Amino acid sequence: MSEVAESFPVGHPLAGFEDQIDQLRECGRLFHSRGWSVGTSSNYSVVIPGDSVELIVTASGKDKGRLKRGDFVRLDQEGCPTQADQLKSSAETMLHVVLAAEPVSAGSILHTHSVWGTLLSDHFYDQGGFEIEGFEMLKGLEGTATHETEHWVPIFDNTQDIPSLAREVQAMIESQPEKISHGFLIRKHGLYTWGRDVFASRRHIEVYEFLFECVGRKLGL
Amino acid sequence: MSEVAESFPVGHPLAGFEDQIDQLRECGRLFHSRGWSVGTSSNYSVVIPGDSVELIVTASGKDKGRLKRGDFVRLDQEGCPTQADQLKSSAETMLHVVLAAEPVSAGSILHTHSVWGTLLSDHFYDQGGFEIEGFEMLKGLEGTATHETEHWVPIFDNTQDIPSLAREVQAMIESQPEKISHGFLIRKHGLYTWGRDVFASRRHIEVYEFLFECVGRKLGL
Amino acid sequence: MSEVAESFPVGHPLAGFEDQIDQLRECGRLFHSRGWSVGTSSNYSVVIPGDSVELIVTASGKDKGRLKRGDFVRLDQEGCPTQADQLKSSAETMLHVVLAAEPVSAGSILHTHSVWGTLLSDHFYDQGGFEIEGFEMLKGLEGTATHETEHWVPIFDNTQDIPSLAREVQAMIESQPEKISHGFLIRKHGLYTWGRDVFASRRHIEVYEFLFECVGRKLGL
Amino acid sequence: MSEVAESFPVGHPLAGFEDQIDQLRECGRLFHSRGWSVGTSSNYSVVIPGDSVELIVTASGKDKGRLKRGDFVRLDQEGCPTQADQLKSSAETMLHVVLAAEPVSAGSILHTHSVWGTLLSDHFYDQGGFEIEGFEMLKGLEGTATHETEHWVPIFDNTQDIPSLAREVQAMIESQPEKISHGFLIRKHGLYTWGRDVFASRRHIEVYEFLFECVGRKLGL
Repeated sequence: MSEVAESFPVGHPLAGFEDQIDQLRECGRLFHSRGWSVGTSSNYSVVIPGDSVELIVTASGKDKGRLKRGDFVRLDQEGCPTQADQLKSSAETMLHVVLAAEPVSAGSILHTHSVWGTLLSDHFYDQGGFEIEGFEMLKGLEGTATHETEHWVPIFDNTQDIPSLAREVQAMIESQPEKISHGFLIRKHGLYTWGRDVFASRRHIEVYEFLFECVGRKLGL
Repeated sequence: MSEVAESFPVGHPLAGFEDQIDQLRECGRLFHSRGWSVGTSSNYSVVIPGDSVELIVTASGKDKGRLKRGDFVRLDQEGCPTQADQLKSSAETMLHVVLAAEPVSAGSILHTHSVWGTLLSDHFYDQGGFEIEGFEMLKGLEGTATHETEHWVPIFDNTQDIPSLAREVQAMIESQPEKISHGFLIRKHGLYTWGRDVFASRRHIEVYEFLFECVGRKLGL
Repeated sequence: MSEVAESFPVGHPLAGFEDQIDQLRECGRLFHSRGWSVGTSSNYSVVIPGDSVELIVTASGKDKGRLKRGDFVRLDQEGCPTQADQLKSSAETMLHVVLAAEPVSAGSILHTHSVWGTLLSDHFYDQGGFEIEGFEMLKGLEGTATHETEHWVPIFDNTQDIPSLAREVQAMIESQPEKISHGFLIRKHGLYTWGRDVFASRRHIEVYEFLFECVGRKLGL
Repeated sequence: MSEVAESFPVGHPLAGFEDQIDQLRECGRLFHSRGWSVGTSSNYSVVIPGDSVELIVTASGKDKGRLKRGDFVRLDQEGCPTQADQLKSSAETMLHVVLAAEPVSAGSILHTHSVWGTLLSDHFYDQGGFEIEGFEMLKGLEGTATHETEHWVPIFDNTQDIPSLAREVQAMIESQPEKISHGFLIRKHGLYTWGRDVFASRRHIEVYEFLFECVGRKLGL
């Protein structure tokens, strides 16, 4: 950070989470510079562990390349603000909430919009997803010990009915967890991935984007 | 800004508009780094509301990646300098003036030259424009609530007769506003877009450029 | 510059030219970040006007993204060092010397190696060059008032015999100046362009690279 | 470096090598920003000359765009830590060890994962490698005096059995040194190159990546 960012006062819903927020801001700077989070698109979150899951997530409509500490909101497990007087969060927050509650053990969820991801999500939509196989880079996905891996990227249809999409995602995680192990695409929309913490989910974004570009360029070779 | 920029003295035509100018300078750094404003191309403006519209616009021939506070001029609703002894503005300024006066409510107008925009403006010229449809990123265009949108990008022929081009643009805004809602391309030249303020017009540039790259790469897939 | 660079002591061959050198260093940072001057490729120069032409040019083998003030040499109109104990300059310096002496009035000469320029220099080699026509960006080439321009980019065969190549370039400038007005390509090698000063030659690099990418991508569309 | 990095205390296995480590960290920042070392992929090393070769190499699982001084380990000529209590190094370290011991005189070994390198390593795998010929950029490979060079890039199959891969590389260096003069690719994995020092190996990475993009884009032209 070039500026000195102030900590939140005691009692503020974001107080005590300045480090995690700064990690998400740094994701924003990186992903914006890569062209994966332009036009105020994308949403990033960290999960606060506890008896009842809570999330800190980007507020709606912010430029992801220039996030300020205050550009975040704290939500409960229903996706509602934990305190009043917070900024509005995007409707898509429900996807973060579902992923935080699912057995995928997400400690951080990152959603981006890249050109290659968008193109592949359309190109392979009719077959429900696509396989990525044999790349060393796959080892960057947590728990993958060899490149001799067949990794499936599922694609969901886009919709503005987020609760319905969240149920679809949830259903696949529960019934076919091997098909949705680290992330998924939404058609002509973008990527969702997650990890134990921001370091892991950010690594997953980089791994997926690298592989999407490889697959996309190979289609054009 | 890494350097400390000085404010303009009282009576200077740009005095009091340092913040808006700095926002345009930041657009310049971003767009230049993206390759959308190279070779001293592009023009950026903010509209000063009032009884009679006035604009602050980039002076002619400046490197957009390194704009200084003084690299701007203030123009009246005829496109003439509000005071003498200002830098020369580009002939294209008349397009900014027309857009500031039209009912599109432009508070800021941004004109860029990207490779993908240039290629599409040529590829689709014969059909007068092209449709962008079904992308989530379309929601970044002000007032667009769903991806289930058919967005038309009109293409005008390039000309050095800017007053004539300005009349064509004006005529389409008045007769077919739904076909020119957020921006337009000029053939083998570049993009014009606008928004309520610099934040919104900059977002529109990012949204259009993302979509142009998607459309362009898909043509090559 | 983030570091404070020291001025040269009196009597040093580069003393008094710190500003021009810093402009070339900034070109290096920009061109390296764009991928146009990687692998220690490229050469940049400024011409010192006077009774007999002299040049300040990058020394051989330097990383163009991290040029230091001392990474330059001063040469006379034969391409020989004006004083002993200077760094070695590259053999290609003779092309700079010829361009400085020719009636093209070069105040600064920039030579870069980009992927698109390299590809086009090979693709169009058999026809001796290629035409760029109808792009607004052409107006960034000094003295070009309209996009309705047919701009020829000549391509010379690559050789390690630089004096011979320099004579070929010289011959074209003298016999067909309209075919080599602002720059040329060397096959599978790179671009030479020039301008009144570093600002103009740097603009020409950006203009050419933009147009090369447009032409190259259109071939693939 | 924007932060002030502390030197290692006397007796620390990395003490005295802060400069070389900082050079590798700068490689990491550059290669990450280029997209050649994303997702915590890649490994970089410097060789410490002496009676018995030792290496300083990146620790496993670090983000290459944000390497800290402590993110390195010191290994002996068997690839074992020179002292206990160091971070874990990646299995691929054995390739660095082999290259440090071979007559290729590596003073620094750099391994990256780029999109173009990955695509070419797959496209040309069946023929065992590919020729790069006639590019001026080839002169950036140490000891190459002319573009009239046929440079062979060998491709090895990917495997998680690194000692076996290391023996294959070693065998080619010994039996066909002209075919593996400056680097090699591993299929769907990445590039290894080396040089006298970090400056030279970094230049080789830039040269190879430039040439890979040229070859890859030409296949698509």
